[in-house]
Amino acid sequence: MKYDIHIRIGKDEMSFGKGVVMLLENIERFDSLSAAYKEMGMSSSKAWKILNRAQNDLGFPLLESTTGGKNGGATHLTQQGKEFLMTYKHFCERIEFVAQEEFEKAFGKKW
Amino acid sequence: MKYDIHIRIGKDEMSFGKGVVMLLENIERFDSLSAAYKEMGMSSSKAWKILNRAQNDLGFPLLESTTGGKNGGATHLTQQGKEFLMTYKHFCERIEFVAQEEFEKAFGKKW
Repeated sequence: MKYDIHIRIGKDEMSFGKGVVMLLENIERFDSLSAAYKEMGMSSSKAWKILNRAQNDLGFPLLESTTGGKNGGATHLTQQGKEFLMTYKHFCERIEFVAQEEFEKAFGKKW
Repeated sequence: MKYDIHIRIGKDEMSFGKGVVMLLENIERFDSLSAAYKEMGMSSSKAWKILNRAQNDLGFPLLESTTGGKNGGATHLTQQGKEFLMTYKHFCERIEFVAQEEFEKAFGKKW
């Protein structure tokens, strides 16, 4: 027996979950939005859709861009975006830790 | 800010979650499969699909039927089905309890 937990958060809608989190993590990794969604096999329009939905719902920008320079600009997470992502990931980790323990207790022996 | 948690369990696939749980709870309530799916606005084919998927995946019957008698037969949960449903619900309740606490800690003040 195994389990799967999906955790979403948001204000007016559940706009922040696994998909946008993976995208933000890849943006941090590559300093590039297009490299991030390509890495995930995601289209540009889908990436913008989930990012805009999250930003509109949360009420603050997750991303900022710098233009020009040697590499022709880059996309980064805003400070608030970084903090929110970290808070969400910590929240998920705590739940997953407890879920693992509780799952063993509930289903480990009999089922 | 609010959150939403979906918890699914299963063996080869995540066959047991919110939908089949609501259906089983309604079967317990009405002693009838058709009354249960009608209460949920669910079609007969959809109800059988999620029940069969869960039963095949878990490897034991969730339901048993009695035929005849004054009311022309009824559908009940098997003993194993009842125990499994209770175990799943307890597992979810523990996670939801912890999630509520952790959510307050993580998002209660700043966000």
